[in-house]
Amino acid sequence: MVRVAVDGMGGDHGPSVVVEGAVMAANDFEHLEIVLVGPQEILKAELNKHKVLGGKITLVEASEVIGMGESPVAALKKKKNSSIGVCVDLLEKKEVEAAVSAGNTGAMVAASTLMLGMLPGIKRPGIAITIPTMHGMCVTLDVGANLNPSAYELFQYAIMADVFAKNIIKKKRPSIGLLNIGEEESKGTDVLKGAYKLLRESSLNFIGNIEGRDFFTGKADCIICDGFVGNVCLKMIESVLETMISLIGRELRKNPISAIGAWFLKPALSNLRKDTNYEEAGGAPLLGVNGNVIISHGISSARAIRNAIRVAGELVTTQVNDQIVESITPYLSQSAANSVRNQPAE
Amino acid sequence: MVRVAVDGMGGDHGPSVVVEGAVMAANDFEHLEIVLVGPQEILKAELNKHKVLGGKITLVEASEVIGMGESPVAALKKKKNSSIGVCVDLLEKKEVEAAVSAGNTGAMVAASTLMLGMLPGIKRPGIAITIPTMHGMCVTLDVGANLNPSAYELFQYAIMADVFAKNIIKKKRPSIGLLNIGEEESKGTDVLKGAYKLLRESSLNFIGNIEGRDFFTGKADCIICDGFVGNVCLKMIESVLETMISLIGRELRKNPISAIGAWFLKPALSNLRKDTNYEEAGGAPLLGVNGNVIISHGISSARAIRNAIRVAGELVTTQVNDQIVESITPYLSQSAANSVRNQPAE
Repeated sequence: MVRVAVDGMGGDHGPSVVVEGAVMAANDFEHLEIVLVGPQEILKAELNKHKVLGGKITLVEASEVIGMGESPVAALKKKKNSSIGVCVDLLEKKEVEAAVSAGNTGAMVAASTLMLGMLPGIKRPGIAITIPTMHGMCVTLDVGANLNPSAYELFQYAIMADVFAKNIIKKKRPSIGLLNIGEEESKGTDVLKGAYKLLRESSLNFIGNIEGRDFFTGKADCIICDGFVGNVCLKMIESVLETMISLIGRELRKNPISAIGAWFLKPALSNLRKDTNYEEAGGAPLLGVNGNVIISHGISSARAIRNAIRVAGELVTTQVNDQIVESITPYLSQSAANSVRNQPAE
Repeated sequence: MVRVAVDGMGGDHGPSVVVEGAVMAANDFEHLEIVLVGPQEILKAELNKHKVLGGKITLVEASEVIGMGESPVAALKKKKNSSIGVCVDLLEKKEVEAAVSAGNTGAMVAASTLMLGMLPGIKRPGIAITIPTMHGMCVTLDVGANLNPSAYELFQYAIMADVFAKNIIKKKRPSIGLLNIGEEESKGTDVLKGAYKLLRESSLNFIGNIEGRDFFTGKADCIICDGFVGNVCLKMIESVLETMISLIGRELRKNPISAIGAWFLKPALSNLRKDTNYEEAGGAPLLGVNGNVIISHGISSARAIRNAIRVAGELVTTQVNDQIVESITPYLSQSAANSVRNQPAE
């Protein structure tokens, strides 16, 4: 049995959706046991709406909730008994083996970093998202935890993404691309040039710099970038399909012949929407912290919560964190010489 | 008459496409006179393939070409008589009023910055691209000239984008959005927080932070960002439509009913391709340098070159640079206090 703590109050849709997702996971995955964290009365009332296979969901009290707009560190200090804080506390005490929240991302990152600490040798955590491309899934790291990483931290992200891609999206020898503004080694900031050099000299399957277009082409199995550009790209990708459907719809209204086409095209578009849906990936692991932590999208549906819990279980059973520590060990001496970050230009 | 120098050797498709575009511009726009720059024999041979209205295209010799992969500053030093260098030299000597190149972007930025200098008060140049959205065109600045701007430099980009949007895409009071990882003022790096403050206190129509998804929604008429994230997003946007068409095509092959739809949908998709085409915007002005400089996409078609020349003419006739100098003047005292850039985090 793998025990997974789930923040019952996280997400834009509130506890009803999270509890429904937890019930789906409990019933669908034999090896998972779910610990729902939050105000008992609210969660019990939600649980009573569903049928759960015997003993697979338990409750742990947490009386407070950190809002989506709250400042993460201040909120964690003020609300000692928040659902996010209690989830991570259970993980720290080893009462569960993984934790999932669709709540305030910053608070989940801060709680995990402060309470669990980092894996031995890892400098900073990163959020890894799995994105569908023309040629299968692609892991992008980081998408928002570290806005100004050093060259060495980017290199560590590559090592972590490699382990994650091998175990969770089942690529044998994942190709690693460094997101840049051109393919040549000389492109980009000093940080990127430093990361390029570390990657080239490593045993990873580094394919060089890649560009914005390669999020869709599937040129790399793993895209390594700072959390700022990763976050902007992720939000752009999330909006692409909806935008394209709206634009096509607008064209159709101009032309009745096209409108006939749209009717026939409906099944294809709905398949596409499913394929490019964040729901299937479910959640993004916070890699680098000393524990299995999954951050889910605020807009998560019940199905997305179910899949986030599934990925949490996979992190535990495949021992991704142990593999990360093993993979990073040969490179630990390179840290000091490669701590360059973006510096003032004048 | 407005005289525009055109780098006859720039672009992935070579002089035949550039010369064809120059001929189109010369014949389509009465007020433009075009100075084609490059090796005389090559350009003459290309010109002889076309009919040009009398006296509207002249040639200026430049015997060397800077390749797309060459290091910009080194290439400019070594090749004293490059087509890019001669174009900017003509501009500096006021023998032309604008210059256009689809060649090595870095070389064009370096030549313009070094030879023309900056507009009075402007710190750094930025490349402004015009992107189609759900609600009209949107100006994004910077997309690749300045990878690590200070807060004040981002603020100056907003002033330049505002002037450009008023004059070239004809928005009365353009809305300005700052690209960030969340809407709250507290989001992002210190550089972004500083830029937010400067923008809020200015007389610009600042609508706050915007996110990756807003490249498509048209929430802002101008998107202000550093050149790294701007460049990555631009390349992602360029690839979106092709990716969507491929994905839809793949779905269609799975399902014969959808395939009927695809046939009817063809006119809508081809309209869409036209609307989202870089060809119509033509080229991106390098704003902030003391001269009218347009950088065109390496893959520019003849039509894109024609439109880049058209935009060059518009920069001259609307006196965008004079307006930028006028707009920046009230804010010049804010420079020193706001020169924060991304700094080492430890």
